[in-house]
Amino acid sequence: MRILVLGGDGYLGWPTALHLSSAGCEVAVVDNFARRGYDLEMGVESLVPIASLQRRVECWEDVSGHQIETFIGDTTEEAFVYDMVGRFRPDAIVHFAEQRSAPYSMVDRKHAVYTQVNNVVGTLNLLYAIADTDPAIHLVKLGTMGEYGTPNIDIEEGYIEITHRGRTDVLPFPKQPGSFYHLSKVHDSHNIAFCCRAWGLRATDLNQGVVYGQSTPETLLHPDLATRFDYDAVFGTVLNRFVIQAAAGQALTVYGKGGQTRGFLDIRDTLACVELAIESPAAAGEFRVFNQFTESYSVNELAEKVATAAGGADIAHLEDPRVELEEHYYRAAHTKLLDLGLLPFLLGDDLLGDLLALARAHVHRIELSALAPQVMWRATSSTLSRPGRPRTVNANRDFPR
Amino acid sequence: MRILVLGGDGYLGWPTALHLSSAGCEVAVVDNFARRGYDLEMGVESLVPIASLQRRVECWEDVSGHQIETFIGDTTEEAFVYDMVGRFRPDAIVHFAEQRSAPYSMVDRKHAVYTQVNNVVGTLNLLYAIADTDPAIHLVKLGTMGEYGTPNIDIEEGYIEITHRGRTDVLPFPKQPGSFYHLSKVHDSHNIAFCCRAWGLRATDLNQGVVYGQSTPETLLHPDLATRFDYDAVFGTVLNRFVIQAAAGQALTVYGKGGQTRGFLDIRDTLACVELAIESPAAAGEFRVFNQFTESYSVNELAEKVATAAGGADIAHLEDPRVELEEHYYRAAHTKLLDLGLLPFLLGDDLLGDLLALARAHVHRIELSALAPQVMWRATSSTLSRPGRPRTVNANRDFPR
Repeated sequence: MRILVLGGDGYLGWPTALHLSSAGCEVAVVDNFARRGYDLEMGVESLVPIASLQRRVECWEDVSGHQIETFIGDTTEEAFVYDMVGRFRPDAIVHFAEQRSAPYSMVDRKHAVYTQVNNVVGTLNLLYAIADTDPAIHLVKLGTMGEYGTPNIDIEEGYIEITHRGRTDVLPFPKQPGSFYHLSKVHDSHNIAFCCRAWGLRATDLNQGVVYGQSTPETLLHPDLATRFDYDAVFGTVLNRFVIQAAAGQALTVYGKGGQTRGFLDIRDTLACVELAIESPAAAGEFRVFNQFTESYSVNELAEKVATAAGGADIAHLEDPRVELEEHYYRAAHTKLLDLGLLPFLLGDDLLGDLLALARAHVHRIELSALAPQVMWRATSSTLSRPGRPRTVNANRDFPR
Repeated sequence: MRILVLGGDGYLGWPTALHLSSAGCEVAVVDNFARRGYDLEMGVESLVPIASLQRRVECWEDVSGHQIETFIGDTTEEAFVYDMVGRFRPDAIVHFAEQRSAPYSMVDRKHAVYTQVNNVVGTLNLLYAIADTDPAIHLVKLGTMGEYGTPNIDIEEGYIEITHRGRTDVLPFPKQPGSFYHLSKVHDSHNIAFCCRAWGLRATDLNQGVVYGQSTPETLLHPDLATRFDYDAVFGTVLNRFVIQAAAGQALTVYGKGGQTRGFLDIRDTLACVELAIESPAAAGEFRVFNQFTESYSVNELAEKVATAAGGADIAHLEDPRVELEEHYYRAAHTKLLDLGLLPFLLGDDLLGDLLALARAHVHRIELSALAPQVMWRATSSTLSRPGRPRTVNANRDFPR
C-alpha cells in the first residue's frame, strides 16, 4: 500500500507515518511546517525537543531500514497538491494537514479566517486532485468529536435515523461545533460528503476525541524520532496541562465547573484506527464516519485521576474561557472501529505515570506562563493579537498560497 | 431605520434597496460588481438592460426624492467592511453579497474555491465587524432552501425536535446541500449560529426558495430602475428559462424526469419578507431561520404552467446535468413569515403573462446558446473552464482581496 500522510511532521502525523512505514507501507510525508510556525508565533515549544523533518526521516531509515519520501508544500496550492498526488499515486491519503487548535482559531478575525480558509481550501484541493487523478484513492480524513457539540441525545457515528411526522430517513447527525476550528471541520465534512455523492469518491471521516500520550513503539526507538508534547493554553489539551501542572507542583486548573465531558484516546489507538480504516476502505461513493475515541471523561474526573497518579495535587477552578455547557448529558457511539478490530489502550495509572515522568524529566523546559488561558470565546480578539504580544508569523495568513 | 444592503446592485439586492428606501428607511447599497463580472466572464447579459449603479441611484433620487448612499468594495476585505459598518452605523444589514449560482460554483476547482472563500470569508468579516461595532445590529442573511436537500421527512424551519433512544433535543435541521454554492451557505449558517451563541449577535437566516419575476412597484417607475432578468444556464433559474424558451418558440427543456420539487416565490414577496424580518428583529443571541418561499412546484408542473400560459409549447427532457433525485418526497414548513404577516403573491397566469410579454419585448436580446447546460455535476471541470471558452475574469479569484 502506498500512503500519503498530510501533516506528517505534526504531533499525530509523524507517529502515524512511522507506524504505517513499520507495517510495510510505502509512506510519503507532506508538510508546510505551519505547526512549527505556530510555535514561533506563540513563543512556545513542545515539552519534548523534536528533530527537523529531514533528520527524522534520516534517523528512521538508519533505525528501520525504511525510506519515507517527503513533499514540502502547502495544500492550499493547487499545483502542489496535483503534482504530489499525481507523482506519488497513493492508495490512501491520511489527512492531518489542518490547523487543529480551537483557541488558535479564536485568537482574532485573522486567525478565524486563516483556519477556515486553510482547512477548507486544502481539503477542496485534495478532493479535486483525487477525483482528477484516481477516484479510487481512499481519503482518510481527521475530523473531531467536537463537530457534534453536546446535544441532549446520544451521538451516533455520522448519521442518525429520524422519524418525523410519520416518515423516516437516515440523515447527517446535526452539528453544533463550538469554535471556528470545529466549524472548519464541519464545513469539510459537508464538502467531502458531497464529493463522494457527486464524483463517487471514497472517504472515511475519523471524528477523533482528545488524544493523550506521547510515545509509540516507533518513536521510542530513538530520541530523534520523538513526537511533540504540547501543554500551552493554545495547542495543549487538558490532560497534558494537568500532567505539566502536577509535575511543576502547581494546582490543576479546571475551566468552569469541570463537568465538560469529552471522548479521549491514547495516541497508539490513533495509529491503530488509521491503519484499520486504511485496511478496510470505504466503498466507491461512500462517506463513512467513525467516532474515534475509546473512553469518555469529564474534566473533573481527569483532574482527579492526574492528582491521584501524582500522589496529590490541588485542583483550582478558573472562569471558563470558552462558551460551552459546563454540565451536560454526553453519550456517544464508538463501535465501528471496535467492530473492525480495535483493541484499545485505556487510560490507567501506567500511562499517567509515564506522562508524569516525561514531564519531570523535562521540567526545566516548562514555561508556566504558557498555561494561562488568554483566548476568551466571548471576545472577538485576545491579548495574543495585540501589539507587544506574540504576533502572526505571516502577514498573508488570511489567504495563504 | 438605517439599512445596509450588501450586494445591492444585484437581481434582488437592488429592488430590496428601492423597496426599503420607499418605505422610509435610510438605505446604503454595497457592491463590488462581481455579478456584472460573471456576465463578462460567461459572455452573457441580463435579458433586460440594466443601468449602472451610479445611474440607478441618481434616477431613484429624481423619481422618489430619496437618496441612497453607495459603498463600492469587497466584503472579503476586512478594512472595507469595518469602515462601512462603522461609518454607516446600520440598524440592520441585509446580506445578499454572495456568489449565488450553483452551476457557477461547479464550473471547476477555481470556481468552487472562489465561491466558498468569497461567501464564507465575506460573512465572517461581517460577523466580526458587527460584534466589534455594535452587537445589536440585526444581520438578515440570505440562505437557501437548497441547504436542506431533499430528505424523506418534512423540512422544518432551521431546527427539528428529535427524540432518540428515549431522550429529546431541538437540534439544527440536518443539511444535505447539492453543490459547492449550496455548501457555502451551509458553512455560513453554522458560522452565524456560532457567533450568535458566542457573542450574543442577532441574526435571521432567510432560507429562500427560487425567486421568479422581474418587476416591483419601484423598478417599474423608470427603465433605469429595472433589475436583471437572467435566463442563461449558469445564472438563470428554471422558470426564467422556460419563459424565454416559450417566447423564442423553442421546446422547454426539463432536466431529467422533472419530478424535482422546490419552493418558489415572487420577487415582490422577497422584498416583503426582508422587510418583515427587519421590522421584527431576532433577539440578542438568537439565530432565527425562516423558510422563505410561498409555493412548491415540480419542474414538470412549472413546464406545464408556462406551456399553457404561452398558448402551447413543446416540452423536452434533457439528461440531468446535476446530481439530484429526480423524483422524491418534498414538504417544507414555511409558516413563520406568514405568521409575521406575509400576504403572498401566488404564481398565476397574470405573472406568467407579464414574464412572457417581457421576454417577447426583448426577444432580439435572447442568446439561445446560453440556455444549454454546460456544467455537469459529475465532472470536475466544464467546457466553460477550458481554453478558447470564456475564462475567469480575475486571476486571483481563489483568494480575492
